[in-house]
Amino acid sequence: MQNPDYRNCDVSPPVYPATTVDTTARLAALRVEMAKPENNFDAYLIPSEDAHGSEDVPEHDTRRTYICGLSGSAGYVIVTLTEAYIWTDGRYFVQAERELDCNWTLMKQAELGVLYPDDWMAKNLQNGSRIGFDPTLISASDYLNYQNVFANEKGKVLYLVSQTTNLVDTIWAADTPPQPSYPTDLLMILDATTYTGETWKEKIFQFPGDQSVRGLMKSLTPDVADVLVISALDEIAWLFNLRGKDVPNNPMFISYCIITSDEIKLYLNDKDKRATSEIMSHLEASGCSGSECTQVYPYSQFLTDLQTHGEASDDGKIWISDASSYAIYERVPEEKRIMSQSPVMLMKAVKSTKEIEGMKRAHLKDSIALAELGGWLQQSFDALDDPAVGSDSFTELDAQKKAREVRQDDPEFASLSFGTITGFGANAAVIHYSSSEETNVRITDKSTLLLDSGSQYYSGTTDITRTFHFGSPTAFTKEAYTRVLMGHIDLVTSHFRSGVYGRDLDTITRNPLWINGLDYRHGTGHGIGSFLNVHEGPARISLGYSSRERPIQIGMFFSDEPGYYEDGEFGIRLENVMMSVAAKTEHQFSTYQYMTFEMVSLIPFEPNLIDFSLLTPRQLDYYNDYNKRIREEVGPSLKSELARNWMTKKTEPVLYTFRLGADDQCTGGASQVAVGGICLLSLAYAVCVAFLGKY
Amino acid sequence: MQNPDYRNCDVSPPVYPATTVDTTARLAALRVEMAKPENNFDAYLIPSEDAHGSEDVPEHDTRRTYICGLSGSAGYVIVTLTEAYIWTDGRYFVQAERELDCNWTLMKQAELGVLYPDDWMAKNLQNGSRIGFDPTLISASDYLNYQNVFANEKGKVLYLVSQTTNLVDTIWAADTPPQPSYPTDLLMILDATTYTGETWKEKIFQFPGDQSVRGLMKSLTPDVADVLVISALDEIAWLFNLRGKDVPNNPMFISYCIITSDEIKLYLNDKDKRATSEIMSHLEASGCSGSECTQVYPYSQFLTDLQTHGEASDDGKIWISDASSYAIYERVPEEKRIMSQSPVMLMKAVKSTKEIEGMKRAHLKDSIALAELGGWLQQSFDALDDPAVGSDSFTELDAQKKAREVRQDDPEFASLSFGTITGFGANAAVIHYSSSEETNVRITDKSTLLLDSGSQYYSGTTDITRTFHFGSPTAFTKEAYTRVLMGHIDLVTSHFRSGVYGRDLDTITRNPLWINGLDYRHGTGHGIGSFLNVHEGPARISLGYSSRERPIQIGMFFSDEPGYYEDGEFGIRLENVMMSVAAKTEHQFSTYQYMTFEMVSLIPFEPNLIDFSLLTPRQLDYYNDYNKRIREEVGPSLKSELARNWMTKKTEPVLYTFRLGADDQCTGGASQVAVGGICLLSLAYAVCVAFLGKY
Repeated sequence: MQNPDYRNCDVSPPVYPATTVDTTARLAALRVEMAKPENNFDAYLIPSEDAHGSEDVPEHDTRRTYICGLSGSAGYVIVTLTEAYIWTDGRYFVQAERELDCNWTLMKQAELGVLYPDDWMAKNLQNGSRIGFDPTLISASDYLNYQNVFANEKGKVLYLVSQTTNLVDTIWAADTPPQPSYPTDLLMILDATTYTGETWKEKIFQFPGDQSVRGLMKSLTPDVADVLVISALDEIAWLFNLRGKDVPNNPMFISYCIITSDEIKLYLNDKDKRATSEIMSHLEASGCSGSECTQVYPYSQFLTDLQTHGEASDDGKIWISDASSYAIYERVPEEKRIMSQSPVMLMKAVKSTKEIEGMKRAHLKDSIALAELGGWLQQSFDALDDPAVGSDSFTELDAQKKAREVRQDDPEFASLSFGTITGFGANAAVIHYSSSEETNVRITDKSTLLLDSGSQYYSGTTDITRTFHFGSPTAFTKEAYTRVLMGHIDLVTSHFRSGVYGRDLDTITRNPLWINGLDYRHGTGHGIGSFLNVHEGPARISLGYSSRERPIQIGMFFSDEPGYYEDGEFGIRLENVMMSVAAKTEHQFSTYQYMTFEMVSLIPFEPNLIDFSLLTPRQLDYYNDYNKRIREEVGPSLKSELARNWMTKKTEPVLYTFRLGADDQCTGGASQVAVGGICLLSLAYAVCVAFLGKY
Repeated sequence: MQNPDYRNCDVSPPVYPATTVDTTARLAALRVEMAKPENNFDAYLIPSEDAHGSEDVPEHDTRRTYICGLSGSAGYVIVTLTEAYIWTDGRYFVQAERELDCNWTLMKQAELGVLYPDDWMAKNLQNGSRIGFDPTLISASDYLNYQNVFANEKGKVLYLVSQTTNLVDTIWAADTPPQPSYPTDLLMILDATTYTGETWKEKIFQFPGDQSVRGLMKSLTPDVADVLVISALDEIAWLFNLRGKDVPNNPMFISYCIITSDEIKLYLNDKDKRATSEIMSHLEASGCSGSECTQVYPYSQFLTDLQTHGEASDDGKIWISDASSYAIYERVPEEKRIMSQSPVMLMKAVKSTKEIEGMKRAHLKDSIALAELGGWLQQSFDALDDPAVGSDSFTELDAQKKAREVRQDDPEFASLSFGTITGFGANAAVIHYSSSEETNVRITDKSTLLLDSGSQYYSGTTDITRTFHFGSPTAFTKEAYTRVLMGHIDLVTSHFRSGVYGRDLDTITRNPLWINGLDYRHGTGHGIGSFLNVHEGPARISLGYSSRERPIQIGMFFSDEPGYYEDGEFGIRLENVMMSVAAKTEHQFSTYQYMTFEMVSLIPFEPNLIDFSLLTPRQLDYYNDYNKRIREEVGPSLKSELARNWMTKKTEPVLYTFRLGADDQCTGGASQVAVGGICLLSLAYAVCVAFLGKY
């Protein structure tokens, strides 16, 4: 039977759920623009990113969501004169069926037989096709890749046509409601003593050795860089200890930066308003003409200035990020261009002592908030007249609202760090679900509630997921939760050494799931910023090679978030934030730095969802130690009786013992039994070993 | 103090161990050739490989060993008019210090600050330098990479000069003893019914679907291949069900192959002798002119024929392997060239049902042989007058000789699969040690004996390493052995799914070592052929990205060989061969194929070297189950009382129990105790939990 929550394009007319976005008029308007003689496009490319390659973008820049309806953070659209395609990844497959109308073909990335956009265009577009794109939005690496792939398609020529006028902007401006403007909020200075630990001057030119930005420019091989272009918004925010509000849930401001040995130039959107005397003073910008102060220019001047650097008669090299837009790329002549990862990316990912303190403080705040939320959820459930039916005053949206309320009064709270995900039952199986009036359901005793939320505190960014069940979970649900927990524990307790990439650790997390045929269609961990982006590179914990990934170093923060999603039934994800630290080892082979992780989030798991007999002694030790840390480190800060009781109940110690498995195998395991029972069960095991003929 | 086993280049004159090879005269002779006007080379490249990219090469082709003295399988030499450099990997660092004289600079690959040959040449060779190389020995990918790297070195031009006359051959032919000739042994036909399971005709054009060689040529995207060039010796041997003796310990014969839709052409070294009536009949070669028989030509005709294909006026594509030599590459014009992994590589790695049977039979033979060897070693040790001093009749070389004797009488035995590694004490820390009269030491009770050996049986190739200790190992030696065993077990019991690469599993093996600051400087597992190369691709289990690696599939065989090497003290490696198999899972998320490994080698570990209290219950379960398999599957085939007793003693079951850790932590662990003791210790644990205030 067709799921009524999904679009049904097999019938005529198609049947849609309330979540579907009607894009027929928008597509028609876009195609009118594409067909105009000055454009004459056979296809038009619409990526998700803004001009800075951001994952989360200002509302003004949500062009891909506008055109196709899919509200997730990842997607790539190609519209032809007759068809429309959206590529997205496993996190959004289910959501796509809920939000896309039947104008759209969903291209499931990484599934067998599904071509990527480059090969798809090479194979499917006709000889002579003109492919239009906005040069500020398409990355140079995508552009170069397309050129390469198209060149290999013999007997066919495809033209990539850079077009400064964005066609989506054109039709959106004329739509109702029209395309939103950029926000105009002022910028905030993040104090070095309290928060960042380092001033912008230290970061740019005062760090010892080659470790400042200018030092790294000079020590670059094989050629030193005379000019560095910084285009990523979080890199600029980090570098100048400034924050903004231009991107929902991300404290960024729209800007570019150019650094040379003589100058530091910051290009600010809304510069006349935002370059207040306080900001000018922070940047030492008034009358700045030397190499150790910052000149502030309007955002619109950046590409012109970059072009000037490109056309200068000297032969100094210009370092642009490998994630640069084609608009940046094309302004720097090849002989001057160094295209490689921005040095600020790694500097930012390795946190300073102050930032580490701040991240820990931020996660303590969120740990307290989550205990309050946990207590409230249990109380609300307990108050239900009929737990199997629930109530309209205890729904996904109520929990979502509460997830904000428990955080927002903190004096360091700036915003949420992403739209809270509150999914119950089948909705919990939608990996990046966003609840709305159309999809909202009651919370009952029938399934799992998945709650993924986080904050932007001035001291740090948080990201936590917990999965609840207020009734009697099925054995399968418990097994899935337990295996997710086992993977979560195995990752945080894993050890590794310098040179190891996060991709090398992903399997450790999945192994307890794979062993019984389970898996999840997303990465295991992402880097996380300090009052910056909730996702940041250049390290991550995810299967699959990327040339941009860098090895893990001490002082990086990562999420640890395995999951399991049973389509149409339930979803489970357990997400904490942890930090890479030096490992205490008795031995020291070679000159490697040995490392492990330290858990930073301190929120109880749900014992009711754990089959303790699956846990190894080491996993159970971790579980008990973790609960002990919660009691000691979070407990004293809990304000409400509700939170205290909930936390205490969920952090009971669990004793390890043996069990007689259902398969007559004598295996170790854990269960909550009285002390006397341990000996009894162990004795039973010994008897089993001795008499059942295992050996 | 300078280790007397290593060269000392810090004194004048240098001091050498007996293992050093004097290369002064060879280098001088080579430089005379380099300086001749027809050459005029500033540098000359000498790789380890033969014209087929082989890891192990015919003695005739051991040019790199001849010129520098290092006898390992991996190395890359650059000789300039004044200096000489050898690059090698961590397996050979210690060996290099024993074998190189002070003419040579050792370049330790992958160590911090050590440039690879490409960057080294770009940085260190002077502008205008001419770099000579033999086009049949340098791979096309190396050549292209060099061109690329040199082009990026501004203000400098370096010339790569292809030179058909090999300068090492020139000087070696004039040396005493001169360069060895190629062997002239006849070829052997490997029967499809008994051994391969598939005929050469099935492999080339009768497999269903696109799965035959010609099928894969036709289904290649984006362009189909009209011509396939096969240059790897093991691929040709596998494809035609033929074996030879041209490479020591590898059943290869020197050859090339070209397959088109009309023809199958095999180019044989020593063709007139080797194309016997039996071989001609097997290949249906007599009077062959159609598409379903094989034409046999002399080896020397291959490059000419390839050139003819390249120059043909049709526009059919020619598929050459990405591991092809530059000599092959340059004969195929760019517009006709497809350079990508040979289809035969993956076909060969996924074993047929018959090959799987054969590999298992081969490993059973070797398991029996190793039990005989284990019994003999123990008996020999027990017979020593003074175990601390040992005897000249019980040395590394005696054990090495015995490792062959216990195998060679088997009717299916063809040869060893590599030179047996028998290292005691400090020699065991040399990862790819080769014992000789100069390095040979007695086996005593003071350290570990590492024994790495394998066979070529007609039914399959084996590769086994065990580590022995006949005295009282130190706590550190036991810990290292135990952690190596834990990694070994964690790998074979790991689970994964389709799409997962071996590189994703390597960390699982190292984690028990890393946790206490230990590691090993080699990969964890290599593919292994069926009566073919002991190392084969395209899958492996090793950290580090390679574009040539392919995901693991069911029916591949791998070694599982973690280790630990304490320089100057002892070495440990535990190596079995295992096979990737479908996992039995209760659940099935998505369409993935879930997999695990089945252990194929059945040889006891050394309980005297195991600290059982470190093992998890799951690891101990595996250990006991494995020993049970040895008793049941190998036990009945053991012929000598010596082997039977040794096997029985080393496969005693070990019971799991709790222990009170030295750090007052109550953790699970295992030890050999009586049944009653389990309850006692568990009770002690319970008391500890209850009263020592852990919670």
